[in-house]
Amino acid sequence: MKKSLTTLGEFGLISRIATGVSSGYGVITGIGDDSAVMQLSPGMQLLTSTDMLLEDVHFRRSWHDPYRLGRKSLAVNISDIAAMGGIPRWATLSLAIPSDLSLDFLDEFTRGFLSMAGEHGVTLVGGDTCSSSSALAISVTIMGEQFPDLILRRSGTCPDDDIWVTGTLGDAALGLKLLEDGHLSSGFTGETESVVSRLLDPTPRVSAGLALAEAGLVTSMIDISDGILGDFGHIASQSAVGATIYIELLPLSRHYVSLSQTLTTDPYLLPLSGGEDYELCFTAPSANREKIADCMKKSGIEATPVGIVTPLPGVRVVHEDGTPYNRQTEGFKHFTKKQGFVPNSD
Amino acid sequence: MKKSLTTLGEFGLISRIATGVSSGYGVITGIGDDSAVMQLSPGMQLLTSTDMLLEDVHFRRSWHDPYRLGRKSLAVNISDIAAMGGIPRWATLSLAIPSDLSLDFLDEFTRGFLSMAGEHGVTLVGGDTCSSSSALAISVTIMGEQFPDLILRRSGTCPDDDIWVTGTLGDAALGLKLLEDGHLSSGFTGETESVVSRLLDPTPRVSAGLALAEAGLVTSMIDISDGILGDFGHIASQSAVGATIYIELLPLSRHYVSLSQTLTTDPYLLPLSGGEDYELCFTAPSANREKIADCMKKSGIEATPVGIVTPLPGVRVVHEDGTPYNRQTEGFKHFTKKQGFVPNSD
Repeated sequence: MKKSLTTLGEFGLISRIATGVSSGYGVITGIGDDSAVMQLSPGMQLLTSTDMLLEDVHFRRSWHDPYRLGRKSLAVNISDIAAMGGIPRWATLSLAIPSDLSLDFLDEFTRGFLSMAGEHGVTLVGGDTCSSSSALAISVTIMGEQFPDLILRRSGTCPDDDIWVTGTLGDAALGLKLLEDGHLSSGFTGETESVVSRLLDPTPRVSAGLALAEAGLVTSMIDISDGILGDFGHIASQSAVGATIYIELLPLSRHYVSLSQTLTTDPYLLPLSGGEDYELCFTAPSANREKIADCMKKSGIEATPVGIVTPLPGVRVVHEDGTPYNRQTEGFKHFTKKQGFVPNSD
Repeated sequence: MKKSLTTLGEFGLISRIATGVSSGYGVITGIGDDSAVMQLSPGMQLLTSTDMLLEDVHFRRSWHDPYRLGRKSLAVNISDIAAMGGIPRWATLSLAIPSDLSLDFLDEFTRGFLSMAGEHGVTLVGGDTCSSSSALAISVTIMGEQFPDLILRRSGTCPDDDIWVTGTLGDAALGLKLLEDGHLSSGFTGETESVVSRLLDPTPRVSAGLALAEAGLVTSMIDISDGILGDFGHIASQSAVGATIYIELLPLSRHYVSLSQTLTTDPYLLPLSGGEDYELCFTAPSANREKIADCMKKSGIEATPVGIVTPLPGVRVVHEDGTPYNRQTEGFKHFTKKQGFVPNSD
């Protein structure tokens, strides 16, 4: 007889998830006691962050296959450790499970979650499962570690620092637009698959963050989950500075450029304000420019200088000739407007 | 103008919650960066646990005032650190907030959460807030610490150890019964208020757990969230032992005894299998009996020996004369039966 969630029960489900978990770095006691027990590396401090993903708010089951949903649930959390220059180590996973969810869905979700964990040396050490009378809710807490003097914060930059971003911006938001507007009802092309995959299966920039932290070249860092405008705004307010961003310098992927020509009136809107890129945005003295390029090359991630930190508060977006770019919008915000789909902030 | 959640926005809400948080033990960077940064005490290991509370599954807004809901959301997590003999230190809080929830509710919830945090030296170091299209969901992760050789686990007991419980059992489950059966529509008495308060505002047994860990008298420990039958079952399976529990030895409160005479046909059913007591159940060699009584007296918590660990697997419940008690039931289980209200396991 095929097992169902109902016949399995809560403890059966926990055992089923735990079966895929092998022991990991620093784990003294994993899943199965009141608390997990972990040993931090000598001299390192603990880093922690948490993100909740809600059905029909952060994802839709009709778009998001369970395997990639499992991967993304952990990836957005790992990204917060990467943004501190930290080493991700341990995670907990809580699931509120609606009655119509199949065991196959949960198995695939778990497989995806553990595949992302495996890629970044993260061990699942605990969690909670319960039945939900409504939507699927996923809550993940990530723990990581790093030496105190290597940890990178939102504060720390000063005027004249360069502003850098890793990878390319706007792909995830364009992927969302494609899904929301129903452009994909007739199937994917290589181009659409590429940008949608940035939305559904983001890559946390752990190795880039770690390389920058260890190189000691960077003055502040954040991950871009709400668009560079909104997220650099956090660096700006916590470092008591402002910024000038040169719109034509924003790095765009080949697929993004090609698709945005037909799909958007302003190709810079999504790279500026679209959510869920999970790239890193960081600042560094301009004297470090070549060293950073070298450091990034070694970690296999492209990074691009896109602007300059200013003493004047506020984030200004300008063209290369210095004239203001006029289509600034804010990053997505929870509560303030009705949206079917919102990125994970924080 | 009175502020609403909509005009406040996500970052406004986070600031509003963060306002009530002062710096705490070991917190290097609290709320407001991609990750929080904490310093563990020298020589201690990290403990972590997580619990999710869902509206209409774990609580009802019509029963649970927001202040006590905030307290309980953290208390059930702190209880998992207490059950390891650990020191609770830091917590994260994620909220999925339905559109009909008022800012007053959230303010009271936060006040309750932070009051529980303050009582146990816990600092809120991060979280996530988002809008929910359905029910209120609360996810808390607790982090604590302890020296490796003081940490108490579910494994570790052996035959002939005494089985102890702190406080009294069954009150919370009787409180739930009173609420569910509508006995309280005409208001509370001192007796009903007392047992309902055990359900709505449980006390995690941190000082008792810590005293037992430091005294080195105990061989295994767990917190009772699903009833002693179910929860001792976890100790039994992880220690590869069984148990005999003497039904008349189960500690019952004065209010419980008085109310159960009219409300239940079997006064032992709820103490055995009712959820949410959040007392500690622990085992210790019988030679330590007097020392444990002394240790508990000093921590201000009563503890009672209720049974004996056996080599034979399974948990048997018997009367004082050794005849079997015949009304055994299992603890509450998620997924396996329809219930309006379930305790937090784990």
